Amino acid sequence: MKRNSFLGIQELSADEISYLLDFAEEFKKNKFSDKNQIPTLKGKRIVNLFLEPSTRTRIAFEVAAKSLDADIISIAEKSSSLTKGESLRDTASNIQALGADAIVLRHSSPGSAKYLSDIIDVPVINAGDGAHEHPSQALLDLFTLRDKLGDLKGKKITILGDILFSRVARSNIWGLQKLGAKITLAGPSTLVPKKLEELGVSVSYNLNNAIENADAIMLLRIQHERQTQTHFPSLGEYSKMFGLRDSDCKPPKKTIILHPGPINRGVEIDSILADSKQSVILDQVKNGVNVRKAILYTYCS
Amino acid sequence: MKRNSFLGIQELSADEISYLLDFAEEFKKNKFSDKNQIPTLKGKRIVNLFLEPSTRTRIAFEVAAKSLDADIISIAEKSSSLTKGESLRDTASNIQALGADAIVLRHSSPGSAKYLSDIIDVPVINAGDGAHEHPSQALLDLFTLRDKLGDLKGKKITILGDILFSRVARSNIWGLQKLGAKITLAGPSTLVPKKLEELGVSVSYNLNNAIENADAIMLLRIQHERQTQTHFPSLGEYSKMFGLRDSDCKPPKKTIILHPGPINRGVEIDSILADSKQSVILDQVKNGVNVRKAILYTYCS
Amino acid sequence: MKRNSFLGIQELSADEISYLLDFAEEFKKNKFSDKNQIPTLKGKRIVNLFLEPSTRTRIAFEVAAKSLDADIISIAEKSSSLTKGESLRDTASNIQALGADAIVLRHSSPGSAKYLSDIIDVPVINAGDGAHEHPSQALLDLFTLRDKLGDLKGKKITILGDILFSRVARSNIWGLQKLGAKITLAGPSTLVPKKLEELGVSVSYNLNNAIENADAIMLLRIQHERQTQTHFPSLGEYSKMFGLRDSDCKPPKKTIILHPGPINRGVEIDSILADSKQSVILDQVKNGVNVRKAILYTYCS
Repeated sequence: MKRNSFLGIQELSADEISYLLDFAEEFKKNKFSDKNQIPTLKGKRIVNLFLEPSTRTRIAFEVAAKSLDADIISIAEKSSSLTKGESLRDTASNIQALGADAIVLRHSSPGSAKYLSDIIDVPVINAGDGAHEHPSQALLDLFTLRDKLGDLKGKKITILGDILFSRVARSNIWGLQKLGAKITLAGPSTLVPKKLEELGVSVSYNLNNAIENADAIMLLRIQHERQTQTHFPSLGEYSKMFGLRDSDCKPPKKTIILHPGPINRGVEIDSILADSKQSVILDQVKNGVNVRKAILYTYCS
Repeated sequence: MKRNSFLGIQELSADEISYLLDFAEEFKKNKFSDKNQIPTLKGKRIVNLFLEPSTRTRIAFEVAAKSLDADIISIAEKSSSLTKGESLRDTASNIQALGADAIVLRHSSPGSAKYLSDIIDVPVINAGDGAHEHPSQALLDLFTLRDKLGDLKGKKITILGDILFSRVARSNIWGLQKLGAKITLAGPSTLVPKKLEELGVSVSYNLNNAIENADAIMLLRIQHERQTQTHFPSLGEYSKMFGLRDSDCKPPKKTIILHPGPINRGVEIDSILADSKQSVILDQVKNGVNVRKAILYTYCS
Repeated sequence: MKRNSFLGIQELSADEISYLLDFAEEFKKNKFSDKNQIPTLKGKRIVNLFLEPSTRTRIAFEVAAKSLDADIISIAEKSSSLTKGESLRDTASNIQALGADAIVLRHSSPGSAKYLSDIIDVPVINAGDGAHEHPSQALLDLFTLRDKLGDLKGKKITILGDILFSRVARSNIWGLQKLGAKITLAGPSTLVPKKLEELGVSVSYNLNNAIENADAIMLLRIQHERQTQTHFPSLGEYSKMFGLRDSDCKPPKKTIILHPGPINRGVEIDSILADSKQSVILDQVKNGVNVRKAILYTYCS
C-alpha cells in the first residue's frame, strides 16, 4: 500500500480495504507460524494521542501495539500540555521529535488527522476525528460483517440511529458502498435527513420496513455529547420508536446486530437482544484488536 | 488450588491462605534459581480496572505483574467509558473481548468482584470491593505478621480504628481467625459496634486495655470518604482517645505496629512511632509486591 | 561520578556537566556498537512521580527509560494518594518500598527533590522543583547550544523573558556560567530585576541591544501559572516589547533561537521565526531524550 497515513475510509479503494481485512484475518487465524514471517513492530515507538475521552479504542490500539511488540505511550486529554494552550501542531511536532514512529490520534475536530499528517513526517492513524470519520471502527465492522455474512456485495445493511452526528456511520457508509453492500439508513428524521439519499443510500423512517429484510443491523450509540440541540423528545421516546426490542419490533432471526459500544441498554436495544446469539457486539471488540494490528503493521512497519 | 478467581479471604481455607503466603515467601527469598522453575506470566495480558482512586494497590499489582513479565494495562476511573454510562458488566465483557487474561478489579460496590467473576470467563482478582473485602491487603498483612511473629496460632492481634467501614478489617478478621489468632477490635463504639463480638472476637473501648498485651496492633486508616455521617466528634478527639502515641498511650516495646496506609500522621499514630522500629508499615508495602506476585501467578497462569 | 541523585545544575562541576553532555552525545551518535558496551537499565524499575502537570518532560523520561530497557511506572498528580492527604515523604517511602530503583520527581515546591533524596535510599532525579531548578532541561539546552555553537567559552547567550519565575533560567544561568558563556538577561524590569546582576550576568531592558550580538537567544515561556500578580500589562504589550519578531526586532541571521516549550506563538516569538532555520526548538526536544538517557544511566545503573 502506498499511503503513509490511515486517515479515513473515504480515501481507500475497495482493494485497499480488502487488503487490510485479509491481513486482519490472518492475525485472527493466527497464520504466522513461520518465525520469519511473524509481523512485528519491535523497536517502534507508537504514541496514542487521545484528546477526547475514550477507553475501548485507546486500549484496543494499546493491546494491538503491544501484541506486535511495539512500545506504546499513551497521552490522554488532561495530562497533555494542550492544557497550557499549545496547538495540536506543536504538540505533534514535539511528539515526533521525542522519537515517535507513528501517532494514533483521537481529536474532536473533523480533519485533524489529515491536518497532522500534512505537518509531520511520521504516519498518523486516525482514531476518530470529530464527526468526520472513525475508520478503524468501520474496518472492524466491515470485518465482522464479512466474517458472518461472507462477500458483502448485494448484502442489505441497515444503519439505525443517530446518523447525522456519527463518524462511525460516515466511515461505514463509505466502506459498505465500496464493498458493494446496499445501505438503508433509519431513525428519526431529525437525525437521518432525507438529503442523505444523495449518498446513494435508502432512507427510512419506519423501523419495521428498515429491518425486515436486513442481513445486518448496525446500531449507533445515541451520542448525547455531540448534540447541541435536542433532536428527539426523549430517550424513552427514541427507544419506543427506534429501539430494537425483543417484542413487537423484533429483527428477523437470521439478521445479525452490531453496535460500536458502549451500548445504552434499553435505549438502542433491549438487553435480551444485546446478549442473544444474533448480537455480534463482542465479536466486534475481538476483531477490533486484529484489525488494529493490521492497520499498525501496514502503516508503521 | 481449584478456585478461578481471588475474591475474598472469607472463602479461602487456612490451607489455601498458607499456600499463598508460602508462595510469596519464596518470591521474597528469591528461591527461584532454576531457570525452568522461575514463575512467569510472559504473554499474559492483565488489566487493572480501578474504578475507585488508588495509588499503592494499583502500582503494587502493576509492579508484581511486570516482575512476572506479564503485560499490564491500567484503566483508571476517569478515563473509563463508565463515564458514558456503561455498566460494569459491559465494561468487563469488553475488556475480556479485548484479550484480557485476567482482570484486577477495584470497585466501590461490595460484591462487585464476585458479580464480575460470575459473568466473565477470565479470573477476577479483587483489589477492594466497597466495604466488603480487600483480600490482597489482608494477605500482605498476614504475611507481615507471620514473618515477624511466626505461627499466628494464639497470637494476640488488636485491630484499632474504623472497623465498621473497613474492608481491610473484614478481610483481616477472617484471615486471622482462620490462622488461629486471637482478635481484639478497639475504637469508638460508633465505629466498633458491640455486636461485632458475634464474629468471635473481643471488643474493647479502652485503648490501654486493648494494646497492653498485644503481639501486634493493626491500625486502620480513618476513612473520611466512606462515612456518610460523622461517627466521632473530630479528628483531634479521635486522636486523643484512640491514636497511638509515644507518650501516655504507648504500646509495649515488643508489639509490632501495622497500618495499610496512607497514614494520617498525628491522627491514627504519632510520627515518632510510625517511624520507629516497632512499625512494620514499609515492610507491609514490600511484602505486598511478593504477595501479589503469588496471587497473580496462582490465579492467572 | 560520585553523586547519588541528580538534583540541580548548581551543585555540578563543569567536568560533571561535560561528562553528561559527552555521554548524551554518544547516544546521539549511536556509538554503542559493541554489544557489551550498550548501556542498559534492564531490570531497573524507575518511577515517574509527577505531582505537577507536564507532558513533554514526563514523556521524555519515559521514552529515555524505555530506550534503556528499564521498567517505568508513571504516577500523575490526580491518581496519587497525595489526594488522600499523604505527605510527599510517605508517598516516596512507599514507592521505594514497592521496589523502585529511582524516582524522577516533578513537584511544585523548591527543594522537594533534595528533601526526598535526604530521606530515601534510591536516586532522585529532579524533573523540576517549583521555581528552583529544572536541571535536565538546562542540560538539554546546554547540549543543543554546544552542538550548534561548539565550545561555549566566551559565547554570548541572551536569556529573554520571565527570568524571575523560571526554574529553566536558574538552571541555565548556573550551567552557562560553569561552561564559561557570557550571559545577558533581558525582559521587563518586573521580571528581570536589576539585582540579578549580582549573579555575574548582564541585565538589559532593551531587546535590540540584548540580541544584536548574541550567539544564541534562549526564550522562556511566559508562565501565567507561576505568577501571583500581574508583572506586565498584557500579553500583547509583552509581545510588542519583548517578543521576537520577523519584522522590526529581528535577531541576526546567525543567531540560534531556543525555547523550552510549549511556545506561545505570537507572544514570545512569531510563528515565522519559530519555524525558521534559526530555531532549534525541535532539536532541543530530540536532544532531551539523549540527555535523559545519559542522566538515567549515570545515576541509576
